[in-house]
Amino acid sequence: MNKALETQKQDKAYDCWLAYRPLAEPDIGQYRSVCARVVVMGQSPVMDAAVDELKRGLKGILGIEPQIFPSASGAWALFMGPEQGHITLPEEDLEALTDDGFIIRSGQDGILIAGRKDRGVLYGAFAFLRLMQTGMSIDSLDRTENPAAGIRMVNHWDNMDGSIERGYAGRSIFFRDNGFIPDKGRVKDYARLLASVGINGVSINNVNVHKHETRLITKEFLPEVAALADIFRSYGIRLYLSINYSSPIELGGLDTADPLDEAVQDWWRQKAAEIYSYVPDLGGFLVKADSEFRPGPFTYGRNHAEGANMLAKALEPFGGIVIWRCFVYNCQQDWRDRQTDRANAAYDNFIPLDGKFMDNVVLQIKNGPMDFQVREPVSPLFGGLKRTNQVLEFQITQEYTGQQKHVCFLVPQWKEVLDFETWCEGPESTVKSLVCGRLYPQKHCGFAGVSNIGDNTNWTGHILAQANLYGYGRLTWNPDLSSEEIADEWVRLTFSDDPDVIETIGEILLKSWETYELYTSPLGIGWMVNPNHHYGPSVDGYEYSPWGTYHRADWLGIGVDRTVAGGTGFAGRYHKPNAEMYEDMDKCPEELLLFFHRVEYRHRLKSGKTLIQHIYDTHFEGVERVEEFRRKWLSLEGKIDRERFDAVLERLDIQVKDAREWRDVVNSYFYRKSGIPDEKGRKIY
Amino acid sequence: MNKALETQKQDKAYDCWLAYRPLAEPDIGQYRSVCARVVVMGQSPVMDAAVDELKRGLKGILGIEPQIFPSASGAWALFMGPEQGHITLPEEDLEALTDDGFIIRSGQDGILIAGRKDRGVLYGAFAFLRLMQTGMSIDSLDRTENPAAGIRMVNHWDNMDGSIERGYAGRSIFFRDNGFIPDKGRVKDYARLLASVGINGVSINNVNVHKHETRLITKEFLPEVAALADIFRSYGIRLYLSINYSSPIELGGLDTADPLDEAVQDWWRQKAAEIYSYVPDLGGFLVKADSEFRPGPFTYGRNHAEGANMLAKALEPFGGIVIWRCFVYNCQQDWRDRQTDRANAAYDNFIPLDGKFMDNVVLQIKNGPMDFQVREPVSPLFGGLKRTNQVLEFQITQEYTGQQKHVCFLVPQWKEVLDFETWCEGPESTVKSLVCGRLYPQKHCGFAGVSNIGDNTNWTGHILAQANLYGYGRLTWNPDLSSEEIADEWVRLTFSDDPDVIETIGEILLKSWETYELYTSPLGIGWMVNPNHHYGPSVDGYEYSPWGTYHRADWLGIGVDRTVAGGTGFAGRYHKPNAEMYEDMDKCPEELLLFFHRVEYRHRLKSGKTLIQHIYDTHFEGVERVEEFRRKWLSLEGKIDRERFDAVLERLDIQVKDAREWRDVVNSYFYRKSGIPDEKGRKIY
Repeated sequence: MNKALETQKQDKAYDCWLAYRPLAEPDIGQYRSVCARVVVMGQSPVMDAAVDELKRGLKGILGIEPQIFPSASGAWALFMGPEQGHITLPEEDLEALTDDGFIIRSGQDGILIAGRKDRGVLYGAFAFLRLMQTGMSIDSLDRTENPAAGIRMVNHWDNMDGSIERGYAGRSIFFRDNGFIPDKGRVKDYARLLASVGINGVSINNVNVHKHETRLITKEFLPEVAALADIFRSYGIRLYLSINYSSPIELGGLDTADPLDEAVQDWWRQKAAEIYSYVPDLGGFLVKADSEFRPGPFTYGRNHAEGANMLAKALEPFGGIVIWRCFVYNCQQDWRDRQTDRANAAYDNFIPLDGKFMDNVVLQIKNGPMDFQVREPVSPLFGGLKRTNQVLEFQITQEYTGQQKHVCFLVPQWKEVLDFETWCEGPESTVKSLVCGRLYPQKHCGFAGVSNIGDNTNWTGHILAQANLYGYGRLTWNPDLSSEEIADEWVRLTFSDDPDVIETIGEILLKSWETYELYTSPLGIGWMVNPNHHYGPSVDGYEYSPWGTYHRADWLGIGVDRTVAGGTGFAGRYHKPNAEMYEDMDKCPEELLLFFHRVEYRHRLKSGKTLIQHIYDTHFEGVERVEEFRRKWLSLEGKIDRERFDAVLERLDIQVKDAREWRDVVNSYFYRKSGIPDEKGRKIY
Repeated sequence: MNKALETQKQDKAYDCWLAYRPLAEPDIGQYRSVCARVVVMGQSPVMDAAVDELKRGLKGILGIEPQIFPSASGAWALFMGPEQGHITLPEEDLEALTDDGFIIRSGQDGILIAGRKDRGVLYGAFAFLRLMQTGMSIDSLDRTENPAAGIRMVNHWDNMDGSIERGYAGRSIFFRDNGFIPDKGRVKDYARLLASVGINGVSINNVNVHKHETRLITKEFLPEVAALADIFRSYGIRLYLSINYSSPIELGGLDTADPLDEAVQDWWRQKAAEIYSYVPDLGGFLVKADSEFRPGPFTYGRNHAEGANMLAKALEPFGGIVIWRCFVYNCQQDWRDRQTDRANAAYDNFIPLDGKFMDNVVLQIKNGPMDFQVREPVSPLFGGLKRTNQVLEFQITQEYTGQQKHVCFLVPQWKEVLDFETWCEGPESTVKSLVCGRLYPQKHCGFAGVSNIGDNTNWTGHILAQANLYGYGRLTWNPDLSSEEIADEWVRLTFSDDPDVIETIGEILLKSWETYELYTSPLGIGWMVNPNHHYGPSVDGYEYSPWGTYHRADWLGIGVDRTVAGGTGFAGRYHKPNAEMYEDMDKCPEELLLFFHRVEYRHRLKSGKTLIQHIYDTHFEGVERVEEFRRKWLSLEGKIDRERFDAVLERLDIQVKDAREWRDVVNSYFYRKSGIPDEKGRKIY
């Protein structure tokens, strides 16, 4: 391990939720005796990782170093208790498990953690430690868990120069100076963090594949890709690569990348064979094509199905998949044009192709139709696509939600998406049922999240942003968990079981998304950020731009008419009750009012307030809430270690200052435009 | 000469105004006989350059290669005619010359070009070729010219990585990859261009002195600085360096750069001696201190006089000067604060120091109080400072005036500044009389212009932008030249003596600045550009920023109240008739109305139009004029070589498109804010 990493590891923030804090003495008794002896059934790198983690956890939580006994049994399990005392599992119990599932069961002799595969045991070990750390009784444990979906993935937007697109926590932990970082100690700890919450896939390079990254699939870099894959593999995680659709030209010297060209197809077939000779279990390719100036099949007059299937055929013999992003729209739009609507783009591009993709192609669909705004409706591709593998893409990195300077716990936002009722097959057609493959048969489906980590000691810049990575993982495993449960778990694992700490941080986390929304762009209209870097307010920042991102504010009102009746027709892309709800200004959920409708400032909302007064009030309230977060945090002084206490306080100070900036810019903008004063006579500039 | 440069030189655009186009046969007769023999009196690198240029010019214009005869005479002159037939100059004629001045006089025997120094002869040679190229009769020439001021300088904002801050014509011709470009062929041609219009100083590196550039004054780079200085010297141009005020810390290992610290003073004294051992005639240092995050004396609680004088003392033994920029303001202003006014900053910082600078310090003052906007009032430092050396800084590079994609001939703007009557000593206290040292005694004074050249073949990106470099130089020599004269000269030298060409291009040039103003920000308010890169419209782009750049538009009106009566008091920084004029909304020149006053949209201007209608009308008119420029340019097809015709047309196409963008964004912004429709019912979005 290098010196720098050693120093980082001494920081409490480095361990995140795997700190394995000692339990108070009275609680320990129940666990200590039973955990003193561990029988390991089965041997593999993943089992080694499970045992290592168990030892690490037991040492931290209970202060014991268990004796380890290998067992001759071919099963995959850990057993805690006397060497001869295995609890037997009925065959049907094991059959209820998927490859990643696990059973934790306690009996008279001890506790069994079992899976059909070693991966299940690893997940079980992490789950067991979590249960213990959160003080759960282990007397009569009987838990069977299977993950909700097969793809539980994190996408890195890391570039080989070490920068991270939309990264707010330092530089890449994989790359530096257009090569790989030799020391892999940090990658291993990252793999532990991911596996602990159930993540089983990672794409290591930016979807915008530039010059150097294009070469990741060549001999020059494949040995190092393989070395990373080895580390991830031992934690049950498959590695994926983002590829450049023009590789046949840029690497192969062909004069085309046309997916229907035989030479191109051949090139990819051979390339796949080469790649899999280095990484035999590569997950596959992640592809951003024909989007924001990236090359793709459109260049050759081919559609996305033709484009994706060609790659899928190349990967098929090796069990690889093609994850194809649906973030396709016209980023050269004329702002004067009020008919073209970016919100329609992904739907209109991909619905006609439903059923035309091979079964090792998965479409990766952002949660909303725009781009990870603080509030958007759910993408109508969910429920629209019926015969296509789907992955739901969340953005863990806080691009538009405070860039890890502001606390913004995104789990409540994601829960709303997951629980959204699409009505595609009547009631109970939620997004989560779709992306978990419960509604339509899908060979591959699940979740992708854009990573929020970097090489900062605390991984995520803002320590409270660790909760987003944690929560994302937990939801991919079990989307039925509530935001409250996740927040509670995370605080207990990360900080303390002090009730004040749990309640205070829990409250800050759970209110933080709504708070961020209050002081930023109102009622679903989105954007209003500074162009390019996307931090801080600029109400007109994207108003006269080619990016398809407009609010259309004038002296009378604001909002985009996306109705079928008089607007861009986006509301009509939803199934019936939703379509009608969004179409009708009175039925439209108010938090999305300006996304779907143009509304006058003097229009009265359900609260009885005018729209303009609502804007003023929410912006003042948002800042007051942040100030309250800061006061609450101060009340924890002494209950949290100094380093983390100060680090979060420093971020909260920034948030207070920048929330005021948002408040004053947005309020001043609308006051200067409408001429309508604040009823409460507060200072607007 | 390297291959690339050879190729570039074959392009007609490369020669700029030194193309030396053959004259039509009937015109040549008068010159050919007299120019066949040249007697060179005096010998030096500068004289060599003069002879070279004369030969090159005579070959191009007349198609002859003159015989050169050296003369024993110690005087500095060229004589064209029989070897024995020198025209004698009365002593008092020579005494009327400054070191850079020249006399061109024709007599029976031939033509004499004489100076007191070799530099005068060089300038005379260029002037003679210009006269001939523009078809002037040389029968009875008798011209005595002295430059208006001693400092006639170009500032490069080139970085050693090869980039140019605010450069729009390619990369640096001096630097590449944090070193010097070995091939100096292009630098020599640049020196010719500069000398041809009278420029006698060049600072080669950006005033923002970064890491590598800080090292320009070390042994590592000084030999290469000296090599550049050699080239410039042979064209009468002194080299200057921009220095980092923190050099004693960054290079010297001291822990302070405090100008009153003796160790710091010693360090600079020794450093100056070292630098001058490499470049014995270095012009001196250019310093941007305490401005936009650059270090300076403020850090140590010292004022700018203390800061500049310390350097001046170090340079004094070597005849060097310190050029100290006055671009000092608070770039971390709160936009909510309406009392702090960036326009006041330079005045308030430097007026208290008037008379406190050593006589080898020169203050470099931007033409306006803000930052090279398309329209600003003249800086009140002109006429305010009475006991301080002054240099007037223009921006030749078109940062805020179309970035060499739009045609914007800046000479008319500069003429307004030069002719501005400050009233500091009653009438005839113009800016030009001040900066030429005619009003107050100044040891050093004159002009600085921020370079608009790069390594594009045509030097300036837009071929018509060559006219700005030309015009800048001509004005530093003689600020009484009219815009019309300069445009006419430039077109004849650069393109043709075809009357259609002269008239058409002349008209485009002379109308272009006003046209750019019409479709961009109205009535002196400035800004309204996209932040950072400053190209294209963003009306609120700098409105809620810390840069001190606001228009304060709301639903009723727009403009900044800078009166003494109710505003920031900036109007009161001028001498009396000006202060009263700016203070009074009715007397204030309308082109500066919004700079000095807040005005309601329904306010009637002198034209009888409301302000809002004026905004709409000017923006439509601006675009129409650009469209007209394009049509006029098309009428020149066949009268200009294909390459340059197409190149300019390509830029005009961009300008048409982008002027429309400006029009629509600005008009839409004000329509959406005011709710007042265009009286003529034109399309506003």
